[in-house]
Order: sequence, then C-alpha cells, then structure tokens
Amino acid sequence: VYSCSLLAVGDELLDGRVNDTNSEFITEKLEPLGIAVALRIIVGDDNERIGNALSMALMVSEIVIITGGLGPTEDDLTREAVADALGLTLSRDGELEENLKGFFAAMGRQMSPTNLKQADLIEGAEPLTARLGTAPGQWIEHEGKMIAIVPGVPREMRDMIENDVIPRISERLSPGEAGGAVTLLVAAKPESEVAESIQKALAGIDGIKVSYRAMVGQIEVRLTSHAAGAELAEAEKRAKESLGPWVVAEGDETLEGNLGRELRSRGLTLAVAESCTGGMVGERITRAPGSSEYFRGGVIAYNYDAKERLLGVGRVRLEEMGAVNEEVAKEMAVGVRQRFSADLGVSLTGVAGPESGGEDEPVGTVAFGIADENNAFAWKYRLPGDRQMIRQFATTVLLAIVYFYVRGEEVGNVR
Amino acid sequence: VYSCSLLAVGDELLDGRVNDTNSEFITEKLEPLGIAVALRIIVGDDNERIGNALSMALMVSEIVIITGGLGPTEDDLTREAVADALGLTLSRDGELEENLKGFFAAMGRQMSPTNLKQADLIEGAEPLTARLGTAPGQWIEHEGKMIAIVPGVPREMRDMIENDVIPRISERLSPGEAGGAVTLLVAAKPESEVAESIQKALAGIDGIKVSYRAMVGQIEVRLTSHAAGAELAEAEKRAKESLGPWVVAEGDETLEGNLGRELRSRGLTLAVAESCTGGMVGERITRAPGSSEYFRGGVIAYNYDAKERLLGVGRVRLEEMGAVNEEVAKEMAVGVRQRFSADLGVSLTGVAGPESGGEDEPVGTVAFGIADENNAFAWKYRLPGDRQMIRQFATTVLLAIVYFYVRGEEVGNVR
Repeated sequence: VYSCSLLAVGDELLDGRVNDTNSEFITEKLEPLGIAVALRIIVGDDNERIGNALSMALMVSEIVIITGGLGPTEDDLTREAVADALGLTLSRDGELEENLKGFFAAMGRQMSPTNLKQADLIEGAEPLTARLGTAPGQWIEHEGKMIAIVPGVPREMRDMIENDVIPRISERLSPGEAGGAVTLLVAAKPESEVAESIQKALAGIDGIKVSYRAMVGQIEVRLTSHAAGAELAEAEKRAKESLGPWVVAEGDETLEGNLGRELRSRGLTLAVAESCTGGMVGERITRAPGSSEYFRGGVIAYNYDAKERLLGVGRVRLEEMGAVNEEVAKEMAVGVRQRFSADLGVSLTGVAGPESGGEDEPVGTVAFGIADENNAFAWKYRLPGDRQMIRQFATTVLLAIVYFYVRGEEVGNVR
Repeated sequence: VYSCSLLAVGDELLDGRVNDTNSEFITEKLEPLGIAVALRIIVGDDNERIGNALSMALMVSEIVIITGGLGPTEDDLTREAVADALGLTLSRDGELEENLKGFFAAMGRQMSPTNLKQADLIEGAEPLTARLGTAPGQWIEHEGKMIAIVPGVPREMRDMIENDVIPRISERLSPGEAGGAVTLLVAAKPESEVAESIQKALAGIDGIKVSYRAMVGQIEVRLTSHAAGAELAEAEKRAKESLGPWVVAEGDETLEGNLGRELRSRGLTLAVAESCTGGMVGERITRAPGSSEYFRGGVIAYNYDAKERLLGVGRVRLEEMGAVNEEVAKEMAVGVRQRFSADLGVSLTGVAGPESGGEDEPVGTVAFGIADENNAFAWKYRLPGDRQMIRQFATTVLLAIVYFYVRGEEVGNVR
C-alpha cells in the first residue's frame, strides 16, 4: 500500500489569510486509489524550509504532492527548493518558454522577464501543461519515489490533480494495490444508528474501512477498500440495503439536487413556508441550478401576523396552541401550496433559540408539514444543538421528508 | 520577534474525517502578540513521526504548540513521543492522578486503568489544568524554547490556549515585543479600492502589517503591529476615517448583527422580498439571535406569478421589462413592506445563472430595492462569480444597502 505526503507552500497559508483547502481535495482524490495521506506540512516561501519539509515527506511516503510557489515572482521558490533538495539541476525549457510567450501574446499582455522562471524545469521532470493559468506543473520520478508539483490556485490545482497527477499515480500502482471508495449520504438518522446498521451489514466482509462524517442532520458514510476486489461492491450493496431510503445521495450528489431531480421527473412544483429557519430551506433548494423549473417560491413567516395574513393559519389556533405544533405546520403547508399554486406545499415552524417558546416549546422543538392536493401530514421533533445547528438540522430534516414523500417512501421516525 | 510552529496530531486529521481548525484558531490568538506561524505540520498517531515533526518545528521556531493525542487510549502517543524526542522521562504525577480519580468519582463513572496515562507528566513540565475534559495539557521550557501540549478537542483546546498558553507566552515576551491586531469588516467595496484607501491612509506609519481576506462581497482588513506603541491606534483611526461607512463591523461583530442592533435601537421592523437568493437574505438576517424583534418575515418570489400575486408587482411591467430592473425591485420592496406591515421593505431580484435572463439580463445582474413609508429607491449592479458566489455577493450587498440606509448614510456605488 502506498502512502502520500502533502506539502503546501505559501506565506498566506500560515498567517490566516488563506486556508489550505487543496490538501482536503487531494486527500479525497487519493482515497479511491486506496492511498492514505501520511503527513501534511504547510511551509512559507522559504527555500530551506521547503527543502526540509520535502526531505521529511520523502522519509515517510512513496508519493509527495507539493502545491503552490509556482508563480512568476521572486517569492515563488518551489522549483528551486525542490531541485536543491533532490540535488538536481534546474534549467529553462524551450517548449515551456514558447508556450508562455504564446499565452501572453494571445492575451495581448506584455510578459515581464521574471515570468520566464515559470519555464524552468527540474532535471528529468515531465512538465504538466498549465491549461488554466501560466504555471506548468512538474512530475518527477526520483529514487523510487513520485513527486508532483502543482500550482496553489485551487482551480488550476484541481484541473492538474484530476487530469495529470491522479492518472499518473494510478498507472504506476500494481494491480493488487488499486483500491476504491464509495460515499453514501444518509439523512435524518442518528450517527449511532447508522453505524450500527452498517456494522451489522458488513459483518464478514474483510478489508473495508468505514468512516463517518457528521454534517448536522446528514452523515457521510465512506467505505474504503485498500485492495482491488469484489468486496467493495458487496459492501456497498449491503450498506445500501441496510439503510434503505435513508441513503439520500451517493458520490458527489446532494440531497437538494436529488430532490430537484425527483420533482422534475414527476413534473411536480414546490412551495415552502418556513419560520425559524428564516429562508434557509429556500436557499438550500435553490442552490441547485435549474431549480426554477420546480421551485415556485416561499414565505418566511417569522411571527403570528405573517402566519395568519400570508399563509392563512387560524389566529385562534395560534393564540391557543402556539406556533410550534403539527396543526400549525399543516396549515402553513396548505396555505403556501395554495398561494403559490404549487403541487406540494411544505412547511417548518420551530424554536431555534436562544430563547425558548415556553414550557411546551423548548429550544429545538420543530414541527414539519407537507400538503398535496388531497392531504396534509405533519411531524414534530426535538432537535439538538445551538441556534444555527438547529436551523441547519431542521432544514435537512424537511428536505429529507419531502424527498421520502415524493419518492413514495414512508416517512418514518426522521431525526 | 518570536515565531511559532503548530503541530496537530491525529489520524482523523489526515484521512479527511476532521479538518484541523485548531491551527487557525491558534494563529489568530498569536497574532495580537506579534507572533507569526512559521510552519504547520499534521501527523498521524505515530511516535516516530510526532518526534520528527517536533524536531523540525524546533529547528525553525522558538515556540511549538502541539494539539491532540492526549486521550486515554493506546493511540494517544503525544506525551510519550514528545518526551522521547526531547530526551526527557515521563512519569506518573500524583496530583494529576488524584484529579483524574476525582473527576470520574464526581461523574459517577468507572475509571479504566488506561485513563491513568493522562496523569503522566514530562520531566520538568508544568501541568495545565483540564477544566473541560480529562486531558491535562503540559507547558515545557526546554533549551530556550517553549513547548505547549494541549488537547485536540476544539472546546478544550480553545479554553487552554486562551487561559493558559497565551498568557504564559505573553509573560515571556520582552516589553518591546508585544504587539496587537485590529480587524475591520468592509462591505460591498472592491478589494483593490479598499487596499488603495488603506495604503494612502497609513502612509508614514511604520511597523503596521496590513492583510486582507476576501469573503464574497465583504473584505476583512487586519492591521497587525509587532511592537507595542501608539502606531496601531493611529493606524486604526486613519483606516476607519478613510473607509468611512464602508466599515460595517469591527472585531467579532457581523454585518447582520450590527444591522439588527441599528434596527432595534431605532424601533424599526423589516421585511424582505428576494428572488435569485432563494431565502439567503432572510437566513442571514435571522442568524442573529433575537432577530424576531425586528424581522417580520419575507417572500421568496422565484417567478413572475409569485412576484405578481404575493408582492403586487405589475404583470405588464414584468412582461415588458423582465424581472431584473430597478422598477421591479422597487415594487417588490413596496409590496413586501405593505404585506408584512413593516417599517422597511427591502428587495433583491437577479440572475444567478447558470442560465442568463437574455440579452438585458446577463448572469450576475441583480437589482436591489428599499422602501419606507414615503419613498422607494433602487440600484442595479453586475456581480461576479458563479451561481452560489453571486447569491452570497448579492445578499451582502443588500444587507450593506439596508445598513447604510438605516444609519442615514448615503448609499453610494455599492459593489
């Protein structure tokens, strides 16, 4: 099994101006190959420190990926530092120089002489084409190790990692070493229950690592295999069977994207009435491009007046029962459905805190409703966390309820 | 000037399960002392690698802060690894052992024998009390260097860094070395203009480092001084004067929080009509606890029908002019103000993409409106970025417009 170290170069990564999100991206891309990250180092623009970090990385792993420090200024030292640390020469590459000149000519921009350092290539390195910027990457195989150098700009980095670096690493893996990973997004179910289901389902399958990432109301389950074979496919099949409809997305999909796809394929439209989330449900639905095809709009009803006047919730009911209960949730769903002439009206009313709504409405109490042409249903739960967490949790639960409903699944005990 | 290296320990920080947010927190806490971070290393739970990382950190900085690996399991190796790397012994501390036993007794929980390793203290180290968990930290002064070891759980880490580590570092700084930092949040102004203003304003003041963090429509400006003195106060005063009303928050404040404070102090209420942001404006306003005092609610009008029926925008106007223009923005603001009986109605209508709204409405075009009892005003801008970025940008611009308006500032060229 190979391991990889990640080296991020740049003063701006150390002083709090920029977070190193590149390393997370690369970690995710390595996982399907079964390659674990052994070490991550962030260093400033300093020749000696870059060199020391590279030496340390080479001690612990077969692959080192270096991001950043490939720009045209005198602060950009990665090329020199790597060549120095490996005892290799650095020299101007004719073809890279022509490319660079061509790029500036095409943009109608003057090239400053310092730009030419981007055409410097480490002895024996293969240049990686800069499709989205001026900084080419470099691929080096040295004393049995693989070293990739890519730009620090996330857009350029992503392009080069996906199209140049990952394929090269993948080609060099022995057949038995290729692994894989599968990601499942599970909504509205406690982590402990998800873990228990998965553990039972995977009993007897060897070599599968399971990891969980909790994301407020959603849990990302990752199954990783560090060896080729049928185990991963079998593990995925069993995990999905054991979790049933609670798996709301796979791979890069999102719950809101999949909900949109289901609505679109059924020709259904949706309107939303929300209270304590203040617009978060609508915001989440409209993150999906093309959501105007099925999303009609919504009402943010933050007080009794708005619930009564804009959604038609009965004033007496509000005064007597308060705003956080199944009956009000149903009336909100019915009201918003009618006002927006949508096929489905969905709603959410709750107490996100910090102040509670009284004895019957402690912080975290949220009621959810859904109404179609003929029926209205509602559910009430107590959700954990602080104000913003309760709002995020409630948003996910509502989206999950609608997703189950649209797919004809029974909406069980969603939490 | 001192420099510090940060060493984060834990397998979960390398495999993508957990992001190392601790290092960012510590970087921010060091900045007011004028201490720069020289190196960041993330290693797994491995004795030798922790030791190598510590050695590398000690080569480049006077201070090393280590987070994580202080738990009670056999995976928790930080204590042993640091002692080994420094050539110091590790031995059970009687007082820490009593504390630990007392903690478990108070919780009515059985203590497993492995828990006792949390009472192991490195030779010459000062224990740092675990107020929020069971893992005590350690403070070591060794061969002229300072080494702090704190738990990796963010809540426990924050408490110990703020109350134990920062004060100890601060005490040891020579008087001339104490610095400070000031943070200003600037909204709706391009970074280049902000930087130009600041540069002019600070001309002639020495020893102030300025850094910028762009946050989609907002820019965080940080003024850092690495020396004690009146320069920082003078720099802050001049920076604020030069940016005038564009400074919408200071320190830990937020734009939405400050807008809320202004509305509350003036006894004003607000309602929102939004289109392409899909609820993001309402969500942002209601992030502030207590927003129900001034926020009445909103309408998410995602199509012509909703704009006409729920907000009273003229159908003919929509058909003839489209939805993204100042006139529609004004009608939306007037409409939502009236329907929610609010003092102020504010609105936003735009094209977030990926599809454009035709020739007159390219992606990024957004119109903003505001209406009070007597008047309605509107502005139209073209915002940069992809779908989600345009939505975030538009949300911030609208909040900034309302903030300026409520404070009686002229709403100039907001972008």
